[in-house]
Amino acid sequence: MAKDFSTREENYSQWYNDIVIKADLAENSAVRGCMVIKPYGYAIWEKMQAALDKKFKDTGHSNAYFPLFIPKSFFSREADHVEGFAKECAVVTHYRLKNAEDGKGVVVDEDAKLEEELIIRPTSETIIWDTYKKWVKSYRDLPLLINQWANVVRWEMRTRLFLRTTEFLWQEGHTAHETKDEAVKETDLILNIYADFAEKFMALPVLRGLKTASERFAGAVDTFCIEALMQDGKSLQAGTSHFLGQNFAKAFDVKYLSKENNLDYVWATSWGVSTRLMGALVMAHSDDHGLVLPPKLAPIQVVIVPIYKKAEQLDEISVKANEIKKALEARGISVKFDDRDTYKPGWKFAEYEFKGVPLRLAIGPRDMENGTIEVARRDTLEKEILQVADIEHKVENLLEQIQENLYRKALNFREDNTFRADTWDEFIDIIENKGGFVYAHWDGTTETELAIKEKTKATVRLIPLDSEKEIGKCIFSGKASEQRVVFAKAY
Amino acid sequence: MAKDFSTREENYSQWYNDIVIKADLAENSAVRGCMVIKPYGYAIWEKMQAALDKKFKDTGHSNAYFPLFIPKSFFSREADHVEGFAKECAVVTHYRLKNAEDGKGVVVDEDAKLEEELIIRPTSETIIWDTYKKWVKSYRDLPLLINQWANVVRWEMRTRLFLRTTEFLWQEGHTAHETKDEAVKETDLILNIYADFAEKFMALPVLRGLKTASERFAGAVDTFCIEALMQDGKSLQAGTSHFLGQNFAKAFDVKYLSKENNLDYVWATSWGVSTRLMGALVMAHSDDHGLVLPPKLAPIQVVIVPIYKKAEQLDEISVKANEIKKALEARGISVKFDDRDTYKPGWKFAEYEFKGVPLRLAIGPRDMENGTIEVARRDTLEKEILQVADIEHKVENLLEQIQENLYRKALNFREDNTFRADTWDEFIDIIENKGGFVYAHWDGTTETELAIKEKTKATVRLIPLDSEKEIGKCIFSGKASEQRVVFAKAY
Repeated sequence: MAKDFSTREENYSQWYNDIVIKADLAENSAVRGCMVIKPYGYAIWEKMQAALDKKFKDTGHSNAYFPLFIPKSFFSREADHVEGFAKECAVVTHYRLKNAEDGKGVVVDEDAKLEEELIIRPTSETIIWDTYKKWVKSYRDLPLLINQWANVVRWEMRTRLFLRTTEFLWQEGHTAHETKDEAVKETDLILNIYADFAEKFMALPVLRGLKTASERFAGAVDTFCIEALMQDGKSLQAGTSHFLGQNFAKAFDVKYLSKENNLDYVWATSWGVSTRLMGALVMAHSDDHGLVLPPKLAPIQVVIVPIYKKAEQLDEISVKANEIKKALEARGISVKFDDRDTYKPGWKFAEYEFKGVPLRLAIGPRDMENGTIEVARRDTLEKEILQVADIEHKVENLLEQIQENLYRKALNFREDNTFRADTWDEFIDIIENKGGFVYAHWDGTTETELAIKEKTKATVRLIPLDSEKEIGKCIFSGKASEQRVVFAKAY
Repeated sequence: MAKDFSTREENYSQWYNDIVIKADLAENSAVRGCMVIKPYGYAIWEKMQAALDKKFKDTGHSNAYFPLFIPKSFFSREADHVEGFAKECAVVTHYRLKNAEDGKGVVVDEDAKLEEELIIRPTSETIIWDTYKKWVKSYRDLPLLINQWANVVRWEMRTRLFLRTTEFLWQEGHTAHETKDEAVKETDLILNIYADFAEKFMALPVLRGLKTASERFAGAVDTFCIEALMQDGKSLQAGTSHFLGQNFAKAFDVKYLSKENNLDYVWATSWGVSTRLMGALVMAHSDDHGLVLPPKLAPIQVVIVPIYKKAEQLDEISVKANEIKKALEARGISVKFDDRDTYKPGWKFAEYEFKGVPLRLAIGPRDMENGTIEVARRDTLEKEILQVADIEHKVENLLEQIQENLYRKALNFREDNTFRADTWDEFIDIIENKGGFVYAHWDGTTETELAIKEKTKATVRLIPLDSEKEIGKCIFSGKASEQRVVFAKAY
């Protein structure tokens, strides 16, 4: 296991990158801005997918699949959407290659130029609403509650593994409803699913709120989001749920005949989370010893390492280890027994520590004699010798404790790094010297928001839901404000 | 439920299309050649994915994700591969759009031209082997057993839903091994997984065999395949497993240091099945009443339809229906209780029949009095009245019977449509008038194979594995042959 990695203190950004690379989560590919998600990283993503997919299905949603390509003209149908999405994107212009005349390789066949260019989907509202037009005739066809797991492409100049990549994986939900009220409720339902997933599975506390106009999804009436605080005091948007009003229904002429025989446009939502969550997960819990994973998303929850000198010792230990493995697996715990003879125990310890495996069990000859086992927690790095009897209960409890501990730690961190600022000087001081979430009054104008961003790089991350109204004055303009909003620098 | 659909007799091709469209499996999108996979169709695909994914993981494979884009020059690295794949494909040439000068919509920004064009992956050997070069150093890094679930694009001029589409979904496995023997075993392991999946889940008997040189994967040493017979007597290739030798290792310079300290190229395989399997599934079992699904892949295995006139009757029936639903679900059976009041029972019967739901249960007021229930099988269209007591056992048994019956029917069909031809006249007669699989002698040359294809449209589907050697004469050239091969017209 490589030990040449940065600490958070030395270089936070390098620390993040080192963990992603050296814990085998992902790496850059030969294609600029596109990553390879390695098996260990992908296994975490699969666990995220499974948990979210279940929540979507339990609330009545179905998966479907829509084309990768979107005709260029589709973007122009919704005025705001085209501004937001039809810019930095991958454009397919031809559909054939041919052998080069000089015999060296292949070249684009100019005879195979598309009449209309195709855009690799940066998001699928347009192609989906073009389809919904065919599916929606009457109230009996509603609601449409559809999700898709897909790859999308947004051409990025500066990329970072998981956090900002040209191609990324995500899910995008697209729903159609009879009434505004129903669509608003859907937006809310999904926001809560995202928050619940972040907190229960990722062990990551999140704030829920409304985006300001300047941070709103292009084409939405309202964008709701969850935001989480990373260890460097910056906020990361971890999921968004958009109330689209009738914007896309109007752009793509999707009307339905109501029970009362009225023809009306349907109401819409869209919502998504992406492989960006992987970046949030890495940054939320990891430490200077490497990746730390919450048990609920760890591909390997428990690793068993045998300590031995002679082959007969390994044989004996293996019997015991496989017994324990079986007992744990019967409880739904994923276990790896690493009996490779190509690596030493010390190397294995470092490897699994760096890869964030929540619990490590080690068994040596003395343990075999004493009926004991060494248990090491990744979150606290504590080790203890336990009686091996009833180990499956103990492990189960420990995994629960680790999951809770990580959440509590992250929550404490957020609380320690959440501030109130009442003046511009206070605000500047916190943003520049402390970071974190800053609750402050804002006059509600885009002008002020952009001026603050210009001066401090901090933006309004969200307007909190259900927070108390409080009369105050905007920290920047001094104008009246009715509610504090949350500022932070952000990923 | 639409009743205006074609029978197989009238128009087989239209019958297929009608089922795909009207059973809500898929439809054409606004992008030529690309389909929308609708929720009901996608739910079947998800079941296929889950079953295959489990088999891959149970045999030690992991999932990962590689980029959608492949630099154009990568294709030229392997001589055969470039001929096979770098032709009809989607080419990304630009990475930005801008507002049109006339203010109408967006146009390609010519300043944002890529230095090297990117190809949307038609298959991922090249980008993956470029990555494996970084991953493989020593024997300790081997084997690499990796699979990816992804979308791929092959530009097609004539497309058919599921069977041939420009974009399709698939899995592609890519493995690297120390020895030739290990790679050959992997190719074989996967072929058997595919065959087992086709037979046990899809209820579709398949032949296993080796492709001839002209049908081999571009870049492979050997391509193995499974082939299934459709109801129109044409064969459908349902999965391929390629032994790639050291071709890609050499093209991308992937060497490993062996235990004995020798540096050598690794050995490779690749293998895949795609949404084409959906087309095979539709054609294998469906009839003139619509789709027929094997229970193991049916999103809804059992539908319960209430028959009632008054609201109180529905209330009573609902209690019973939900009780049955719960008992069935406890056994892992997926059940829909369709209590919508917006459709009549007759409409629902037709709907679920067309959609291939394996079992339909109907409960009316008289059933409530008598403790009975009407059970209708989709495969045989038989109805019977059963005592409702212990219905979960009866349903479970019926589902197993349906699964077996579909397989047996398909196997009988294949046996009835498998022939031997010893002369050219016999061969022509069978291919033109009967269709099906024809076992015949072939001289082993590409020349003869292409001549036969030219004259009859039939190709060698495969050289059977483990079939008896038999001395004979090629039906076309009269030259010596040692084994019969399987000819058929194919999708």
